[in-house]
Amino acid sequence: MEIITLSHGEGGKSTHEIINKIFYKHFSNEILMQQGDSSIVKELNGKIAVTTDSYVINPIFFPGGDIGKLSICGTINDLAVSGATPLYITVGFILEEGLKLSDLERIVTSMSETAKVCGVKIIAGDTKVVEKGRGDRLYINTTGIGIIKNDFNLTGTNIKPGDKVIVSGTLGDHGITILCQRTELNFDSQIKSDCNSLHLLIEDILKVSKEVKFIRDITRGGLATNLNEILQEKQVSVVLKEKSIPIKNEVEAVCEILGLDPLYIANEGKLVLIVSSEDADNIIKVMRNNPLGKDATIIGEVIRDSTEQVYLKTAINGTRILGMAEGEIIPRIC
Amino acid sequence: MEIITLSHGEGGKSTHEIINKIFYKHFSNEILMQQGDSSIVKELNGKIAVTTDSYVINPIFFPGGDIGKLSICGTINDLAVSGATPLYITVGFILEEGLKLSDLERIVTSMSETAKVCGVKIIAGDTKVVEKGRGDRLYINTTGIGIIKNDFNLTGTNIKPGDKVIVSGTLGDHGITILCQRTELNFDSQIKSDCNSLHLLIEDILKVSKEVKFIRDITRGGLATNLNEILQEKQVSVVLKEKSIPIKNEVEAVCEILGLDPLYIANEGKLVLIVSSEDADNIIKVMRNNPLGKDATIIGEVIRDSTEQVYLKTAINGTRILGMAEGEIIPRIC
Repeated sequence: MEIITLSHGEGGKSTHEIINKIFYKHFSNEILMQQGDSSIVKELNGKIAVTTDSYVINPIFFPGGDIGKLSICGTINDLAVSGATPLYITVGFILEEGLKLSDLERIVTSMSETAKVCGVKIIAGDTKVVEKGRGDRLYINTTGIGIIKNDFNLTGTNIKPGDKVIVSGTLGDHGITILCQRTELNFDSQIKSDCNSLHLLIEDILKVSKEVKFIRDITRGGLATNLNEILQEKQVSVVLKEKSIPIKNEVEAVCEILGLDPLYIANEGKLVLIVSSEDADNIIKVMRNNPLGKDATIIGEVIRDSTEQVYLKTAINGTRILGMAEGEIIPRIC
Repeated sequence: MEIITLSHGEGGKSTHEIINKIFYKHFSNEILMQQGDSSIVKELNGKIAVTTDSYVINPIFFPGGDIGKLSICGTINDLAVSGATPLYITVGFILEEGLKLSDLERIVTSMSETAKVCGVKIIAGDTKVVEKGRGDRLYINTTGIGIIKNDFNLTGTNIKPGDKVIVSGTLGDHGITILCQRTELNFDSQIKSDCNSLHLLIEDILKVSKEVKFIRDITRGGLATNLNEILQEKQVSVVLKEKSIPIKNEVEAVCEILGLDPLYIANEGKLVLIVSSEDADNIIKVMRNNPLGKDATIIGEVIRDSTEQVYLKTAINGTRILGMAEGEIIPRIC
């Protein structure tokens, strides 16, 4: 069995071997193959969107995806929710000594396939190796570059009372999948991560409406934390209807057993949108035509209340305030 | 003593706390403070250079620098040797549970100061936390974006026999400094890392000569490995004169004791150039006027020999072939 050794991180012969046999083999394109200290891309006409994320998810393979697919989708989603067309991605690997080369290649293949399907190019990379016990198989950083060809204002500055809050589908699938995979918990679960790139769904939405005020992919911290972030300095609040929020029965069951709240659980293929009341139904219709938005639902609305809170109208007609996530929920979820 | 906990990586309140109290405090600029999923920068007129690197150096503080300064300088250098003006850097942190917040802030301060001195902006970031024993204090990924405003061909395709090989100063300082810092080796050394950003030195060089064929900052694998990489598919070879290669006495002494070859030791503030014979002296003059190039020297020349080898004429007039680095030299040197 071939494994990663410290010499793969030295920049010498062994480094070149994995670059040629694994990275160039799967990622090859004319920009990456310049093989320079920087990769040179042609002039871009328009504003440029840039985002970076590191991925430390444990385990690295899970139902619905792996750390490689996640790293490409996550970066594409961060570009797309800003109204950008994703173009280029750089990849930095931190490999732990002892990682199987076959696992590395499986992940690289998954990254390459995801990038191809999404029409983005992996244009630059780096590999470092750390000693056994100084990492956990592998960590990946992806940085994305996209181009903005439209003049949407998706920063949330136009949000006003009466606007509707939409989610694109069921919440908590990713986080609960990962939790069920951790060996300490032996749930015999059929749940799959929702790990997916959402740029085409976002394109569909932006084609039919100029009245989208904010889009975000709901990741760490879940819907509740993400909405709290969105409301910062917006001088309005949001009321959600618990009954309207789509959650899979199985996710709900696991959450109940573990005392977790699905509204704080991470997703990797779901959007939250704030849109004008007039356009909401039309947007829902378009979203439901895309498999990644088939469960899209209006879950609440923006209200005139300058405290910038997220209120939840519960099924039994009480009201809860959903604050930002505090303390440890699920570490290394992405 | 305040330390990093897993909750700092959850995306909730604790994450926001270190973002506000450490990252925004030191890195603040109008682009970063958009606080969006992507950072939006204005249209760039010209070709764009992109590079990515992860830094896993051990120890994280060392004479002459720290992992923070190194991560900014290294990325700036990769852009500058491609003929680009460095503009923007993204930063991804992977923090180990238990890292002192004061150490994190010291490193962030160092990154911020280096970026300011070099005129680059840190425009996007990400923080992940891994459990104790799954990292080593902190790892940093930096991705750099620069703009190319000139039409130099620095890719090496113009290299021809007779061209001169120049280094900007003494070799091996960084690698030997790091080695001396590792506790197993108790050298009482005064050597400092050469960790520095070389973009202004490169600007100086490109101002006086159109006949620079190749520039690279000599990092992992040292001069020998870097020259071997440069020669790939160039159908020429290089002869170096051992006597001309600048090496500090102290670096040479440590190398001798440990059986290391300084030509394979990493640098973090040195350039190797291949330039036309006619321009070489002029370039040396300009380089020596810059403190970072004060020991610049012609160390060899390109010869008509299609084997693409690096030959070393030794002090006693023998000839050695310097291949690419093989096996483990010094792990986690950058």
